[in-house]
Amino acid sequence: MSDGIKKPDPINREAVQKFREQKKKILRPEYYIKGILNHDRTILSQAITLVESSLPTHQKIASTIIEACIPHSAKSLRIGITGVPGVGKSTFIEALGKKVTGWGRKLAVLAIDPSSERSGGSIMGDKTRMENLSQDPDAFIRPSPSGGSLGGVARKTRETIILCEAAGFDTIFVETVGVGQSETAVHSMVDFFLLLMLAGAGDELQGIKRGIMEMADAIVITKADGANVQKADSAMIEFTNALHLFPPAESGWIPEALTCSAREGKGLEAIWQTILSYTDRTRENGFFQLNRDRQAIYRMYDFIDETLKSDFYIHPGIKQKLEKYEKKVLKRELSAYQAAQKILSGYRKK
Amino acid sequence: MSDGIKKPDPINREAVQKFREQKKKILRPEYYIKGILNHDRTILSQAITLVESSLPTHQKIASTIIEACIPHSAKSLRIGITGVPGVGKSTFIEALGKKVTGWGRKLAVLAIDPSSERSGGSIMGDKTRMENLSQDPDAFIRPSPSGGSLGGVARKTRETIILCEAAGFDTIFVETVGVGQSETAVHSMVDFFLLLMLAGAGDELQGIKRGIMEMADAIVITKADGANVQKADSAMIEFTNALHLFPPAESGWIPEALTCSAREGKGLEAIWQTILSYTDRTRENGFFQLNRDRQAIYRMYDFIDETLKSDFYIHPGIKQKLEKYEKKVLKRELSAYQAAQKILSGYRKK
Repeated sequence: MSDGIKKPDPINREAVQKFREQKKKILRPEYYIKGILNHDRTILSQAITLVESSLPTHQKIASTIIEACIPHSAKSLRIGITGVPGVGKSTFIEALGKKVTGWGRKLAVLAIDPSSERSGGSIMGDKTRMENLSQDPDAFIRPSPSGGSLGGVARKTRETIILCEAAGFDTIFVETVGVGQSETAVHSMVDFFLLLMLAGAGDELQGIKRGIMEMADAIVITKADGANVQKADSAMIEFTNALHLFPPAESGWIPEALTCSAREGKGLEAIWQTILSYTDRTRENGFFQLNRDRQAIYRMYDFIDETLKSDFYIHPGIKQKLEKYEKKVLKRELSAYQAAQKILSGYRKK
Repeated sequence: MSDGIKKPDPINREAVQKFREQKKKILRPEYYIKGILNHDRTILSQAITLVESSLPTHQKIASTIIEACIPHSAKSLRIGITGVPGVGKSTFIEALGKKVTGWGRKLAVLAIDPSSERSGGSIMGDKTRMENLSQDPDAFIRPSPSGGSLGGVARKTRETIILCEAAGFDTIFVETVGVGQSETAVHSMVDFFLLLMLAGAGDELQGIKRGIMEMADAIVITKADGANVQKADSAMIEFTNALHLFPPAESGWIPEALTCSAREGKGLEAIWQTILSYTDRTRENGFFQLNRDRQAIYRMYDFIDETLKSDFYIHPGIKQKLEKYEKKVLKRELSAYQAAQKILSGYRKK
């Protein structure tokens, strides 16, 4: 983490002393905890940087911060928003976000993008997007760092949600690109999952991963303006029919298809109304809290499994063994199960 | 495994000697390997029982048998068939199975049913079902044993497929009930995935787990006979439209919706034709083999992960720790990640 403190001229004793004190203060968890609970956005940002850092010292402080924040968390509405590049995600989030803050809510927008190393389609780094929203005092926009494992990124986003909630944000948008595995991760950390789609199925759908559609609580057809209105309306009807063919979700909610024009500001209130109907209904039937409890417990087990796996895969010699036995399986010299046993044999004895 | 050999009167020396020899023979892998490669169905059955056994001595022999069979495997067409209880799975499999053996193919029907402990809806134990097919000399029907973990059942079914293929079966049906997690497992061991559905969406869909529809290479509307024909036809059109809205599968195949009446023997040829079109197309574009290779490698990694997990969860004291920290997560005293770390701390040091 760069903590933004300039290293002083070593000859200037007074400056060196001040530098050391500042460094010390920066590494005290109380500074961050107090700042977050006082809704200080600069300190919130710094704390998220600590959460995202892989340095053990930073991780230790981050852990203390999270522990202090967690009793103040979980009071927000968490909404996952996904869609392929080109669907108009940024424009949509900016338009809906401005509405939401206009209604008096405090909004944090977090972005997960495991594919951000690739050039096109990245949702990060693009500092000019969501210009209006980023200047809104009631909105806080934070992309997840690129690189690292998906599991790691997802974990950090989950803990970032905790910090944002403790810092007074009552609405969280979690944004993904809809082409990778991150949607399952996002689905397991939000209350409502929104899928953005373009009208005129076919080619535009190429990017969406199979299985995502069945996770959606609502599908929004974007860019329903100008010459596109009719196409968007028929897409909406098609998707409504298709969504009714899906098996009912445990929430009791039947996913809805809607249209919207972020450019013209149309359809945004209806979308928000849909989200509120969902939360009303699921709070009433108990699914809302049940889902959150399950997500937390599921996460705990998931972290355990991830750790067991990574401990194994970084173990010396395992990589070579995997390569060797993959070949044997492909040549049909061993069954997958037998190969797995041989790979594990040395490791388990320890 | 009960090997069917009666324990003799210990005073009768001759009988005791014969008993010992029989026991010894039974435990020699060569006996099974030779039998399977000679297409002996009784010995195939006995070998599958060894594969399913959890006794270490049986597992050891089973492993040798599988190793010998695996070079003779992988030459069949593997078809997964799923649908909720009441959809008419047995009748469908029997009707299609009879057609398939009539065309000169050798068919093995394997059933996975992790929920078989429950009474209604079990696909096992019901010995009267598929009466015609079970008397067909070219068909072999084998349910997976009830109980045990899903992972275990799935592994055994995979290895049972190997044995059946080595025993000359060129068509494998793997049947599941469509209400649990077993479909993902089955999907990862077959070439073609068939979902059976009833006409008149709504209530009948209740049982199908979300996400299964997007796995299907074809949806078959069953019981398209009598007063039901029109309803089945409109369901077929609805599903065809819905399937087109899904993102295209990597196989390049667009899933089809079809109707069928197993009772009247209608639609079965068209279904088989669809399966053959799929295999032709995917063999041509290379996806068929690619998918099998991936399934095998995926399986290897999956077995490793399963073993790492089960080693951990049976470790002394872990169960108590999990219960303790689940509570802390639900009370929001710790984040899921922090709880996971505390649970792992003792285990990882070892």
